[in-house]
This record gives sequence, C-alpha cells and structure tokens, in this order.
Amino acid sequence: MFHLAFMTDLAPPFLDTRAPGQLLARGVCRHLRGHDFVTLEEFTPERGKRLDVMALGPRGELWVIECKSSRTDFTSDGKWQGYLEWGDRYFWAVDEAFPTDLLPEGTGLIIADAYDAEILRMPDEVRLPPARRKAVTQRFARHAALRLQMLRDPGLIL
Amino acid sequence: MFHLAFMTDLAPPFLDTRAPGQLLARGVCRHLRGHDFVTLEEFTPERGKRLDVMALGPRGELWVIECKSSRTDFTSDGKWQGYLEWGDRYFWAVDEAFPTDLLPEGTGLIIADAYDAEILRMPDEVRLPPARRKAVTQRFARHAALRLQMLRDPGLIL
Repeated sequence: MFHLAFMTDLAPPFLDTRAPGQLLARGVCRHLRGHDFVTLEEFTPERGKRLDVMALGPRGELWVIECKSSRTDFTSDGKWQGYLEWGDRYFWAVDEAFPTDLLPEGTGLIIADAYDAEILRMPDEVRLPPARRKAVTQRFARHAALRLQMLRDPGLIL
Repeated sequence: MFHLAFMTDLAPPFLDTRAPGQLLARGVCRHLRGHDFVTLEEFTPERGKRLDVMALGPRGELWVIECKSSRTDFTSDGKWQGYLEWGDRYFWAVDEAFPTDLLPEGTGLIIADAYDAEILRMPDEVRLPPARRKAVTQRFARHAALRLQMLRDPGLIL
C-alpha cells in the first residue's frame, strides 16, 4: 500500500500531529467510502465512551471500528467490549505488522495504513434494536453537523 | 443586531463570496444553536430539492428554514411548498427590511442577519411520519459526515 501521494499529502504539520491510530482511522474511512459508508472519527455515543471510527452505511447500517497501532495499544484497552453495543458489526483496524492472533474471535478485521485499508474478516451482524439505532443515528447526525458548523463558522459560540 | 465582530469576522474573502441568503443562513444557524439545534446548510433531501437550512433538534425535531434576501428572491421561488414535507416545522428567514406580509399564513418567521437571528413566529408543528423522519435523519447524518470527511481528508476520492 505504497502511495506516491506521500510527499504532498502528509506534509508537515499534518504528519507530525496525528497519532498512529488516527492515521489508521484515516485509511479506514477512505476505504469505507468505497463501500458507500460515511464515517465519523472519535465519536462519543455517550459520556465517557469514544469510538475511533463510527461508520453509517447506505441502508442505515452502523459499524464500529477500533484502531490499534500496536500490541500495547490493544492490550491496554479494557473497554472494548463496551463498544459492541453501539453497532451492528464490530471491527479492529490494525497495520500489517500487528499480531492479529491476539484479536478475539467473532470480531471483524481490517488491515489499514494511512492511505487505504482492506476488510479481511467480516464479522457477524448483530442488529441493533430499532430504538437504539434511532438514538445512535440521531446522535451521529448531531455530532457530524455540529463539527461541520464549528468549521464553517469560527464565530460560533457553543 | 450590530456586532463589533464585523471587522475580523467577515474579512475578505469571506465577505465577498457569500450570497445574501447564505449570510442570513449563517445567522439562523448560530441562533438555532442556542436552542440546541444543529444545522446543515444547502441540504438536499432528494434529487432536485435543496433546502437552505435543515435543523435537527435535541429530540430529533426536523425544521426547514428557507432564507429570502429580497422580495424578488421570494416571489421567484415556485418550489417552496415542496419543502413542507421535509420537516416538522417550516420557517422563512428574512432580514429586517423584508415585506413580511408577503409570507403565507401558517409558516414560521425568523428575522436574521449574518450574525444572529430571532424567531418571531413559531409555526404549528406537523410531525413527520416515523418512516420519513428516519429516512431524513439518516440522510442528514450521511450528508453531514461526508462533508466533514471531505474537509478533514482532502485526499479523499469520492
């Protein structure tokens, strides 16, 4: 997954300011666009929970993707099971060097870099109950629109 | 509604590139934030329809706001009745000089400038059917997230 865009696309300060997990997230989001999913990074479905990537599909599907840049990044995360309840499918996104045998069975696997990604294992779907889907979709909509408004109107007072 | 922020906030090229209706929309969006509504400008709920402002409230309310900068802008719009079906409430947003007696009964009225706005007449609520609300909210979410992704990742190929 080598890209000629490297020199222009990740010029400083961009290269310097994103953590490894955030670069994986970018590749994941690009790839999911090809599946007609839109994405929100660092989405907070409720207080105290932050999902690396939440993806919303063309038929309202909700996928949760956690990005792990290293073994330590994975083993130090004691909260991931609490993320299962926010989506219909749950994926890990890791780079090519990651020891994927660490990952729990039944979860999805995405291999990513900063530029692209690939879904290697599609997890089973566990459909959210309708009321929860409605609430999560609405929250997703509000987060995305508010972030956008903050960008297009720096004079906005929250 | 005079604001000291004028000199810094609307410095060129920003001042030069927004149409009068878009400046009203900005004031409307700022004001609605105070009601805990998030907003999306120039939202396309379906092919061929473009709403100036779609607002999503804290309990999932959907409000449609059309911004009219002049009498001509209003009278040349033959499509507004087609916008009623996309929200629970429908508003016009106009500036202080607008001849508001032109506006049809039963619609809401917001007086706006580029910096703020005020709701002068709250229209009756006509609640969207649940299936339609779900579809519009989902479309809103996807539009907002996609626009955001385009901004945060200029390398995205749509």
